[in-house]
Amino acid sequence: MENLVKMKEHFERARQVLPGGVNSSTRYNKGIGLPLYVSHASGDKLFDLDGNEYIDMCCAHGAGLLGNAHPAIEAALKKAIELGMCNSLETVYHEQLAREICECIPCAEEVRFVNAGSEATMHLIRLCRAYTGRKKIIRMEGTFHGYHESIYIGGQVGPEQLAGNREHPVPESAGIPEEFASLIIPVPYNDVKAFDEAVEQYGDDVAMVILEPIVYNTSCIMPLPGYLEHLREVTREKGIVLFFDEVQTSFKTNLAGAQGFFGVIPDVCSFGKSVGGGLPLSGMCGKREIMECFKPVGNCQHSGTFNAPLPNVLCGLAFLNEARQDYFYKKIKDLGDFFYGGLESFIKENDLNMVIGYHGPQFNITFGRKTVPVRYEDSFTHDKNVMWRFCKDCFEHGVYFHDYGGGPSHHGFSIAHTKEDLEKVLNIIKEVLLGMHADGLC
Amino acid sequence: MENLVKMKEHFERARQVLPGGVNSSTRYNKGIGLPLYVSHASGDKLFDLDGNEYIDMCCAHGAGLLGNAHPAIEAALKKAIELGMCNSLETVYHEQLAREICECIPCAEEVRFVNAGSEATMHLIRLCRAYTGRKKIIRMEGTFHGYHESIYIGGQVGPEQLAGNREHPVPESAGIPEEFASLIIPVPYNDVKAFDEAVEQYGDDVAMVILEPIVYNTSCIMPLPGYLEHLREVTREKGIVLFFDEVQTSFKTNLAGAQGFFGVIPDVCSFGKSVGGGLPLSGMCGKREIMECFKPVGNCQHSGTFNAPLPNVLCGLAFLNEARQDYFYKKIKDLGDFFYGGLESFIKENDLNMVIGYHGPQFNITFGRKTVPVRYEDSFTHDKNVMWRFCKDCFEHGVYFHDYGGGPSHHGFSIAHTKEDLEKVLNIIKEVLLGMHADGLC
Repeated sequence: MENLVKMKEHFERARQVLPGGVNSSTRYNKGIGLPLYVSHASGDKLFDLDGNEYIDMCCAHGAGLLGNAHPAIEAALKKAIELGMCNSLETVYHEQLAREICECIPCAEEVRFVNAGSEATMHLIRLCRAYTGRKKIIRMEGTFHGYHESIYIGGQVGPEQLAGNREHPVPESAGIPEEFASLIIPVPYNDVKAFDEAVEQYGDDVAMVILEPIVYNTSCIMPLPGYLEHLREVTREKGIVLFFDEVQTSFKTNLAGAQGFFGVIPDVCSFGKSVGGGLPLSGMCGKREIMECFKPVGNCQHSGTFNAPLPNVLCGLAFLNEARQDYFYKKIKDLGDFFYGGLESFIKENDLNMVIGYHGPQFNITFGRKTVPVRYEDSFTHDKNVMWRFCKDCFEHGVYFHDYGGGPSHHGFSIAHTKEDLEKVLNIIKEVLLGMHADGLC
Repeated sequence: MENLVKMKEHFERARQVLPGGVNSSTRYNKGIGLPLYVSHASGDKLFDLDGNEYIDMCCAHGAGLLGNAHPAIEAALKKAIELGMCNSLETVYHEQLAREICECIPCAEEVRFVNAGSEATMHLIRLCRAYTGRKKIIRMEGTFHGYHESIYIGGQVGPEQLAGNREHPVPESAGIPEEFASLIIPVPYNDVKAFDEAVEQYGDDVAMVILEPIVYNTSCIMPLPGYLEHLREVTREKGIVLFFDEVQTSFKTNLAGAQGFFGVIPDVCSFGKSVGGGLPLSGMCGKREIMECFKPVGNCQHSGTFNAPLPNVLCGLAFLNEARQDYFYKKIKDLGDFFYGGLESFIKENDLNMVIGYHGPQFNITFGRKTVPVRYEDSFTHDKNVMWRFCKDCFEHGVYFHDYGGGPSHHGFSIAHTKEDLEKVLNIIKEVLLGMHADGLC
């Protein structure tokens, strides 16, 4: 990649003062051997330090559904400036945004906002424990619920760890003590029997069942028919809180999230990513009697100087206003039909050993198999090296796919993408995949 | 408070959709019976929904050192808009800010940025565990290090809990399981003997000693001469990481934090609050060999879509540029000399039963005693009801003091405060305190 001179120089400089040259471990893209350092961004385009242009198929991991530099977001930021920022204070806009969330998300009777999705799941897990007086968490293998000690355990474990994970859940980072693992009960996703057995064994100690209703973080695994309904029924019977982590699924195909899409309403959910229009904004919501366990009403702490900054709240209102327009989800569906339809036909015509899973603007590529995984271990056919080759070849052709440690994780487009740009992406992907096919990789 | 009609109406509306009507439990001010809902802010002034004006003595809990609507922050936000926001991507400004932090903070060889201070302490605790391969944490009573399961245990416990806290550290919120408390070793602040005994008993299992080098969160307790030096010496001998939580102390009287002020350099520190100029920005930094345990260099995870957003990073650069000017810390010192000097004289002249502790622009009021506490339990003379009366009376006279559950926590001024405004505040405080004194409250 001889056109990355300034990029490589900057990587060397950045590594002197930032571990790995980045502020997030996963911002290093192993496929391209560098993090993507940008000079600026606009709509669906990213521009690196050497002036190269890329069509953005990462879209801020799902947060960039409006694309970069959306005029509604710029206007919201200017309004925040006019109001004097109001650091760490509540305004009428906070209440308005909370009310609009309650109108959108079926389970939402009350809401609290934070910045990171990890903050949302952390505080909401604490809340479920405070509400039930119980401690254990049933979680699903292959899902991801944030980078914190309460739940970053036993989710996306390696093939060699999976069997042992059910007895002794595996912390997913160095530095997470096993004491935290003792409260986690991992079960296979989409497995009613395993779930029922876990409830049978631990039911009275289980505070919550937490899951991604669509597993965007692994292969876009979809719930089997009746699976979510079964979880809903059993948790209601047993007094267990049903917790949908909708940080990724919220606002993807409609305003009501995956719970609205499937018609299964949890007791609480976290939400986030795109809701801030690209700025840090996430939240938690649910039944009033659970939410009011938060102080100052109840006895569960949730505070923070930087919760719900006014600029981000105004961007949240701007996002919802945009997403509410008739064109919005129609455009996402049309773009998806075009892009996914084109890619699936191509995969079939060329008998490639790969599959895409998708829901709304986000999709996952899984190599080494031809059907979308149903359980986490189905994704183990996916070869990281093949994924890195894919990222690299697309990058060299001006299309940016993010690397999530080589895993079969989420990619996506935004409302700022045009059909013409997605057609370009499609043509480049086809060329790249044919090259990989010729090399026996897919 | 008959001039709070819209405020009270809004509180009722907000409570329908936000637990307690707020996005942070502590934003409810029990002194005034309401959260402060603002229409806008400017410099050192806050304007509530009824059009009442207040001089801000909260300053976003220390984050608002530049005041509201500072022109350098507005310019930084406009630059972020021009660059297209670059959601979730690294730029040259990230490296520049990291480098400037390394130039400012003595222990900083490498840096990572996050939004909330709680995120900084959480990830840095994980890092210290990954680095040492040990699990236990020695912490000090009365300090605060964020609202998360790794450390929100055994710090600011009640008088009736303190004795038991040393055997069985007390989780500080409902919903935090006692399993996590087993890793915490609370010791009294400023007590060399108790610290040495804890090291003697647990030394080989102790990953880190974490403390606020100045306890802004309780009475502004200052370290006794030699205390920090002793911690430094013992931790170095025993291979324990010395962790200064400088979320509050960073950038208060100089660019080097409390470690620069005292000349005791920890292995790692967290920093934050004012560094983002009011926007969410915090960070962690320390020795290279520890920091490089973070992925993708090491094996400790630290990631997040919303880490280090470009607007916040640009505001960080704007803050440092401002703080580096000759006038900056000189003005803070001059304002402090005037305000603290005036208040201390008044307390002495009237023989009030109260004391202020201070360092730079932040200060704490402790009722019920005449000397600044040395140990946490010294602050137990402080009566919450007296504090609430103080907040209420000042509020009615147009001065906003935040309520931290009635505790002897931090208040402050900003660079936007004028001597004239602080004189007004001083006169109002004097009037309020004389009234309280007449009622036998101080």
